[in-house]
Amino acid sequence: MSPSAGPALLVHGGAGEVAAADPEGADAIAGCRAAARAGYDVLARGGSALDAAVEAVRALEDDARFNAGLGSVLNLDGDVECDASVMTGDGQAGAVACVRDVKNPVRLARLVMEQTPHVLLAGAGAEAFGSARAIERTAPGALVTEAMRARWLAARARQTISVGGGTVGCVARDGAGRLAAATSTGGTMLKLPGRVGDSALIGAGTYAADGAGAVSCTGAGEAFIKAGGALRAVEAMRAGRSPKVAAEEALAWARRHGGSGGVICVSATGQLAQAFDTPRMAHAWIDATGVAGGGFRR
Amino acid sequence: MSPSAGPALLVHGGAGEVAAADPEGADAIAGCRAAARAGYDVLARGGSALDAAVEAVRALEDDARFNAGLGSVLNLDGDVECDASVMTGDGQAGAVACVRDVKNPVRLARLVMEQTPHVLLAGAGAEAFGSARAIERTAPGALVTEAMRARWLAARARQTISVGGGTVGCVARDGAGRLAAATSTGGTMLKLPGRVGDSALIGAGTYAADGAGAVSCTGAGEAFIKAGGALRAVEAMRAGRSPKVAAEEALAWARRHGGSGGVICVSATGQLAQAFDTPRMAHAWIDATGVAGGGFRR
Repeated sequence: MSPSAGPALLVHGGAGEVAAADPEGADAIAGCRAAARAGYDVLARGGSALDAAVEAVRALEDDARFNAGLGSVLNLDGDVECDASVMTGDGQAGAVACVRDVKNPVRLARLVMEQTPHVLLAGAGAEAFGSARAIERTAPGALVTEAMRARWLAARARQTISVGGGTVGCVARDGAGRLAAATSTGGTMLKLPGRVGDSALIGAGTYAADGAGAVSCTGAGEAFIKAGGALRAVEAMRAGRSPKVAAEEALAWARRHGGSGGVICVSATGQLAQAFDTPRMAHAWIDATGVAGGGFRR
Repeated sequence: MSPSAGPALLVHGGAGEVAAADPEGADAIAGCRAAARAGYDVLARGGSALDAAVEAVRALEDDARFNAGLGSVLNLDGDVECDASVMTGDGQAGAVACVRDVKNPVRLARLVMEQTPHVLLAGAGAEAFGSARAIERTAPGALVTEAMRARWLAARARQTISVGGGTVGCVARDGAGRLAAATSTGGTMLKLPGRVGDSALIGAGTYAADGAGAVSCTGAGEAFIKAGGALRAVEAMRAGRSPKVAAEEALAWARRHGGSGGVICVSATGQLAQAFDTPRMAHAWIDATGVAGGGFRR
């Protein structure tokens, strides 16, 4: 595919178990399709891959059906703490970890990338940085939904620490051939306060490199951290493997480190691919020929 | 070298500029030699590579001449916020980011590894986790030394954000052939509150894998994050390159991402090597034949 090929973009809505309320994932696919469209509209207007990936993830953060921004899972104390990261193919990166009451963590991650010499800001420092730069804050606790509070009470009663189910992400290639990846999550239900997962970590949950590809991961965050999942998938593409094989290789590394999940990739030429070894991973795409699609079960 | 070869260990005291007060690094080498001895004593008594790496890094954290624990650099607000991480060759990992008033962040990182399902805890959540488990806390601000306060005032007056100079780390292989790496830092002078560097991140500042090697990095943290420096060095050893070549490859990746620094490696067979592209990196070792040494300038 030449650099003049059309833009392309792929989003995921999290790898995990199939929920009884949405067995065929109609809801989750609809949310992913809407986010893919929101991102693609940015690309179609000539926006950058970064603009598109951030916009798609913002849409998923604002959609309470996904575990990111509004509707995030709750930590052991019953609070929402969010992680997010972005990276562009030219090697810029930004991320935030454990931020509270930030409506769109992915936007704050982008701001860290663009307005600091740092890659990652955590906790109160990240929140203060955002507040000083007009990042939208919510009322304390406003990202906690009624539905999630009920799930948290049930999970706490069972004392089960579940794997995150609705982490979101996007990989994009724009018409100029630029690459970007973005990931956002509320993490895992009943996580310890302060826990940071792969979604905040460049190389683990998110990675991008010109000439290779861009990647976003979801699933058992600790396994993807130990695996260096996103970096491994990008390096597999750099070595000439297809994005599908690259995604599968990253998953295999995560399994070696004890976890399952999903990976989405865009290659330097705009080829899209996903792989997951959980029962489901909602995803949706619009490819370089303008064809849209979505999926859910393996 | 067979698994019955003697234990081996290598520590670093940070890559950076040569300080006028210690042009030949006598002080820094002495601190590294003492830490290497402390770690080696653990190995000689039959302790694990993990025990030894944590003990060596603890010694460097308690030594006010290094930028970790006591004597850490100060952030923009004049506070010490520390990052640390540990990983063992069998794939266990733990880390803390942005912790305040924790005497030995490396011990807290080990506790995250051993007593939680998580890899990384940040900020207040990490501190609360440690306090509940008898991790030693200092009086607020007690990790700030007079010397560092003076350097901070001077740096603030010049508005220069300096690269961290005295991050510490250790790689070790014990007599049973087990591998471990540990890293600890106060980060960079005048960093934004909440900034997390590579020293808290598995794959960036610290990595270990049986059959390959163990690695600790120092230098421009943001570049090492984007490079995935520690993971790249371990993968180079897995692919059969010597630890020296592996360290140099990781440095080259960090340079492509705009930063310089240093890398220490131990191979699966206990071969030790270091490389740095800054003017100095204090380091000291005791190798598998029991020979001790140290170095400073390139």
